[in-house]
Amino acid sequence: MTDTFTRADGRATNEMRPVTITRGFTTNPAGSVLVEFGRTRVMCTASIEQRVPRFKKDSGEGWLTAEYSMLPSATHERMPRESMRGKVKGRTHEISRLIGRSLRAAIDLGQLGENTIAIDCDVLQADGGTRTASITGAYVALADAVTELKRRGVLAGEPLLPPVAAVSVGVIDGHVCLDLPYEEDSRAEVDLNVVMTESGSFVEVQGTGEHGTFDRAQLNAMLDSAAAGCAELIAAQKKALAG
Amino acid sequence: MTDTFTRADGRATNEMRPVTITRGFTTNPAGSVLVEFGRTRVMCTASIEQRVPRFKKDSGEGWLTAEYSMLPSATHERMPRESMRGKVKGRTHEISRLIGRSLRAAIDLGQLGENTIAIDCDVLQADGGTRTASITGAYVALADAVTELKRRGVLAGEPLLPPVAAVSVGVIDGHVCLDLPYEEDSRAEVDLNVVMTESGSFVEVQGTGEHGTFDRAQLNAMLDSAAAGCAELIAAQKKALAG
Amino acid sequence: MTDTFTRADGRATNEMRPVTITRGFTTNPAGSVLVEFGRTRVMCTASIEQRVPRFKKDSGEGWLTAEYSMLPSATHERMPRESMRGKVKGRTHEISRLIGRSLRAAIDLGQLGENTIAIDCDVLQADGGTRTASITGAYVALADAVTELKRRGVLAGEPLLPPVAAVSVGVIDGHVCLDLPYEEDSRAEVDLNVVMTESGSFVEVQGTGEHGTFDRAQLNAMLDSAAAGCAELIAAQKKALAG
Amino acid sequence: MTDTFTRADGRATNEMRPVTITRGFTTNPAGSVLVEFGRTRVMCTASIEQRVPRFKKDSGEGWLTAEYSMLPSATHERMPRESMRGKVKGRTHEISRLIGRSLRAAIDLGQLGENTIAIDCDVLQADGGTRTASITGAYVALADAVTELKRRGVLAGEPLLPPVAAVSVGVIDGHVCLDLPYEEDSRAEVDLNVVMTESGSFVEVQGTGEHGTFDRAQLNAMLDSAAAGCAELIAAQKKALAG
Amino acid sequence: MTDTFTRADGRATNEMRPVTITRGFTTNPAGSVLVEFGRTRVMCTASIEQRVPRFKKDSGEGWLTAEYSMLPSATHERMPRESMRGKVKGRTHEISRLIGRSLRAAIDLGQLGENTIAIDCDVLQADGGTRTASITGAYVALADAVTELKRRGVLAGEPLLPPVAAVSVGVIDGHVCLDLPYEEDSRAEVDLNVVMTESGSFVEVQGTGEHGTFDRAQLNAMLDSAAAGCAELIAAQKKALAG
Amino acid sequence: MTDTFTRADGRATNEMRPVTITRGFTTNPAGSVLVEFGRTRVMCTASIEQRVPRFKKDSGEGWLTAEYSMLPSATHERMPRESMRGKVKGRTHEISRLIGRSLRAAIDLGQLGENTIAIDCDVLQADGGTRTASITGAYVALADAVTELKRRGVLAGEPLLPPVAAVSVGVIDGHVCLDLPYEEDSRAEVDLNVVMTESGSFVEVQGTGEHGTFDRAQLNAMLDSAAAGCAELIAAQKKALAG
Repeated sequence: MTDTFTRADGRATNEMRPVTITRGFTTNPAGSVLVEFGRTRVMCTASIEQRVPRFKKDSGEGWLTAEYSMLPSATHERMPRESMRGKVKGRTHEISRLIGRSLRAAIDLGQLGENTIAIDCDVLQADGGTRTASITGAYVALADAVTELKRRGVLAGEPLLPPVAAVSVGVIDGHVCLDLPYEEDSRAEVDLNVVMTESGSFVEVQGTGEHGTFDRAQLNAMLDSAAAGCAELIAAQKKALAG
Repeated sequence: MTDTFTRADGRATNEMRPVTITRGFTTNPAGSVLVEFGRTRVMCTASIEQRVPRFKKDSGEGWLTAEYSMLPSATHERMPRESMRGKVKGRTHEISRLIGRSLRAAIDLGQLGENTIAIDCDVLQADGGTRTASITGAYVALADAVTELKRRGVLAGEPLLPPVAAVSVGVIDGHVCLDLPYEEDSRAEVDLNVVMTESGSFVEVQGTGEHGTFDRAQLNAMLDSAAAGCAELIAAQKKALAG
Repeated sequence: MTDTFTRADGRATNEMRPVTITRGFTTNPAGSVLVEFGRTRVMCTASIEQRVPRFKKDSGEGWLTAEYSMLPSATHERMPRESMRGKVKGRTHEISRLIGRSLRAAIDLGQLGENTIAIDCDVLQADGGTRTASITGAYVALADAVTELKRRGVLAGEPLLPPVAAVSVGVIDGHVCLDLPYEEDSRAEVDLNVVMTESGSFVEVQGTGEHGTFDRAQLNAMLDSAAAGCAELIAAQKKALAG
Repeated sequence: MTDTFTRADGRATNEMRPVTITRGFTTNPAGSVLVEFGRTRVMCTASIEQRVPRFKKDSGEGWLTAEYSMLPSATHERMPRESMRGKVKGRTHEISRLIGRSLRAAIDLGQLGENTIAIDCDVLQADGGTRTASITGAYVALADAVTELKRRGVLAGEPLLPPVAAVSVGVIDGHVCLDLPYEEDSRAEVDLNVVMTESGSFVEVQGTGEHGTFDRAQLNAMLDSAAAGCAELIAAQKKALAG
Repeated sequence: MTDTFTRADGRATNEMRPVTITRGFTTNPAGSVLVEFGRTRVMCTASIEQRVPRFKKDSGEGWLTAEYSMLPSATHERMPRESMRGKVKGRTHEISRLIGRSLRAAIDLGQLGENTIAIDCDVLQADGGTRTASITGAYVALADAVTELKRRGVLAGEPLLPPVAAVSVGVIDGHVCLDLPYEEDSRAEVDLNVVMTESGSFVEVQGTGEHGTFDRAQLNAMLDSAAAGCAELIAAQKKALAG
Repeated sequence: MTDTFTRADGRATNEMRPVTITRGFTTNPAGSVLVEFGRTRVMCTASIEQRVPRFKKDSGEGWLTAEYSMLPSATHERMPRESMRGKVKGRTHEISRLIGRSLRAAIDLGQLGENTIAIDCDVLQADGGTRTASITGAYVALADAVTELKRRGVLAGEPLLPPVAAVSVGVIDGHVCLDLPYEEDSRAEVDLNVVMTESGSFVEVQGTGEHGTFDRAQLNAMLDSAAAGCAELIAAQKKALAG
């Protein structure tokens, strides 16, 4: 008996959507990257401030912050603008915090000196995987910001650590699928976001049984798929930075 | 050579802190539980509203929401009150969302009818593991609220699903330790929160390399430890509900 | 003709509900008290900050602030959480200010040195009289915080003044009743909150004709009843502190 | 031995400042009054909305709300504008609530029909007693709004009750003084605000030992003085309404 | 054929409403002016702070800020109070910014020294032209504040520049009309606000085709009318300041 | 003597920067345009909601709203995100309102039926003229949204009116210059934004003497230059829509 499961966009279950990483997308920030995972498009920037927040003052260390946001017209149905509502949604906060933690795993704050790097991930078009695309693109913007700091001569050592990338995996109709677009994400039984380093270690693992729970075997299969996806993404990051 | 690693409170690495679950802690909400994981104490309540939010109207289904909050004096250093700051912190939002998703895995919304259950987890004293204690205690409060709904005769079927419990695991000086108090949590290399069902399936897995990354072997060891911890917690929930 | 007026809980008109004051309710704040007036239960804490707000800087004096809050599940019908609404209700502000003024009457700021004591009164269960229970319990927490400051050796003199306690009195169907539970409070013609010192002086007198006005004779009868109630409460405070 | 106590403005201790009540101060609201207690000047308006808030819908009754505000330039030192700060201060909330309760004692909501009267008290110039001047002026604006409602023919009965007025009394250097200007208010040992009806009943009594406590004899002396002050104010209200 | 166009209040198309400028309207701010354009009445104050905002620190220069606000009862239908809504409307922001820019054209910040002047324009009664009345009145309040600064001896030179005044012009049924009251303003095809100096230069020109567009000839006719209006207003300002 | 004035980018004083209008920039909104005026880049979208706000209900007419925002990394120095600050800046409000008024001049609301078009202008990169680029690009997005409404068959008539475009003009060192980049804008003596229709009528004229005032002759010269600029922009809009 043949398995008749097919994905709406015809991909294999372990296949990423086409990934594009465009450096120098805008020119004001020290690093500016447009990252695309299929139809998902995020503008990731890394801005330099040559000072640190109060809690890092006189520590000799730097800091990295991150903010994520959806443009109101990024989604299929327009969403109210958070600045007009006067408050940020829990989801936005949660993703901003995830991006911050993930990128701090890619920078040696001690080598950064008393500088702050502000990561901004603004989603221009959303089709699933906006947080994983954000992390993946932000690493490249971060690398460009570190280069700029070196050019300014304010760094002694090398704060940039090896790449960090992120991908989503889910279970759809019982099949483990890599890199979910919105249509799949919204009906996945399980949704796992994984952030990994070049050496294959985990930075973050966030799995949620959205419509059902998952067992250890499924978790293992999802982690295997994510590891392969992250390796591809790290190759794309390195190619973009070499370009 | 002997391993000289010992935990500050003398527990074995795979040992939970003493867990206490007190039902009927207050009398106004339909369910009210004081849950204690060692010195961590959370008041978990489940309040009934016999209506649903707009997006569930005329769906025949119910809904469950959750809010988590720290009392300002719960922590070692008093923290500013979020109502006075005029906004909720990202961490609070994130934990509220986690509790909501976890408890929705323990309720059949279709069987709940057009009723809403509002879970409130207010931390009276914080010593690590407040989110996992919250989830564990909230299940018991939820069970009592379902009983109250039945008493009112507004339910036809049985919406309550088998227990869901949560525990934290971390890596301290290279050792996998179960149920971290604040002192361990703040210096753990890795921190993993796991929400599981009685049957041993995962509802949520959230692992973060706070001060370092973690490999597959470490993740597996942490998941094993968490599974054992959740099984203990579910036994405690069942005992409390039987009491 | 006999007067057939009886209170729902069978108390005499000049009788307090059972009062319990539990010290050391939680361990992080310098003072932590659970106060109970019948079914009303408030967690009152006193936290120490070894600095003062800007307007007291270099004054040689200390300061005392107070915040009052209801947990959302404290009331019969769950109330929306103020932190989620993004603003504090007028009633909350008003009671916080009352508690602050009342407790400042129990502390010699000049003897406190440049330290701040932050009082938090969080209502776990509400059944009328939450503001008067808060003041009464907070005095005991304040006393414990002063003891802690002495232990730290940061005080020269004695900042703690004699006890301050508070009670409500109301007119129900023409009868002056002491210490109103919610059921009486909501239908009282007049509601008077009185804060008094051990020597029988007034710190605050707040009387409101909620459903009607009141004449001088009624005011006098209410003040007499309140004075007796406060004396009982001060005895309970002293007993708790001696314990 | 003669008592050498004199007030800065030369008044007798039981003497009000000059009181002026100007009706028709502006023309858009149904009632608009400028009230002056010495240099304190408040614009009190009563606006009609021919509907009621949700909680009064289909009750057959009306409602009355009140809002108090200081113009930023009303005080000696300019104060930040509350709309720009994004939140209302506790003091503002507290006084708004006091004005609302006091004026609701002067209106029979059942006779008002399903109409709402919105009282606004905007302080143009502050020199102590702004809340008592507000209540006193607002009654006159309320009376004019009721007249307007009658003119529109939407009332059957007479909702306006006899006058309500308010005055402050304080203890300065041990002397009971009526109607405190800012300079006295800020150094008074005790500050009492009293709201009374024409028949001499109390609507509100709010006494605070700002810099010390007060005994029963002092309270009685203050109440006597306040009663005389309110009687004068009610005469002024009636004269203005007759004018 | 005669043109039968007449204005509701009988004015000629190029005629201002009666303008009154009352200095010393209140006494706490350094400058306090009540300005009236017909039934529009605005209290304009200029308060002195002997310091500057951070971005002007150590610049040797001063600063001028402005805030505009409508009292809730100023309009025909009562409007919600912005402080209670928790946010300021776009229109309010826009007018505050216009007043600030306009008045900064009337002050030499370099001659002001490190002092800040805070302009407040609070509309007591609104009948069109509140922003132009505000600017016109605020100049007079500013002049009085500069006089006060000189009296304090904190100024070396003369920061006050020649008068700035503002007027509105509109096209009503094809006719260019000066100084629109609310009734005209709300149905004008075009609305132009012009801020001019004594020498006839423009500080601001803001024209909006509210219900239609306008051609160059109409713009020219409106500018001519505005110039004549501003000249009249400047004469009134000078007369008030000479008084 | 020759005039040696040259612009930093070598343009003639009456020359626009290169203008690019890219339709279909993103795919979720009904209209999505990337507009570029030199280095200024704005994403302008038009989203359809098949309902109207309350004040238009049952009017048979539609509505158009607009929101403008700068991405935090759009400017040379990163700016704090308005959603995180919890409030929108006055400048943002002001530009949103200008865009809304301008685009409502390009739509016949009566022909739109009870539909709302939400315009969003999000600045990806800012180099002066962001509001004029926004208006110019938004017209094209609006045209595409109207086409989509027709495709859905919900329109009877033709709501789209002829093009509206906007440009800035300023006086730099006494020279009237068209379409100011940031470097010129920040030091211009006068700054004029003009919104015009295809027939050469004005929709909005907003001129500000930022660092000085301007006379009638300068205003006329600026208006002439703006008219030529708008004509070029309208040609570009028509070409883009024909493409």
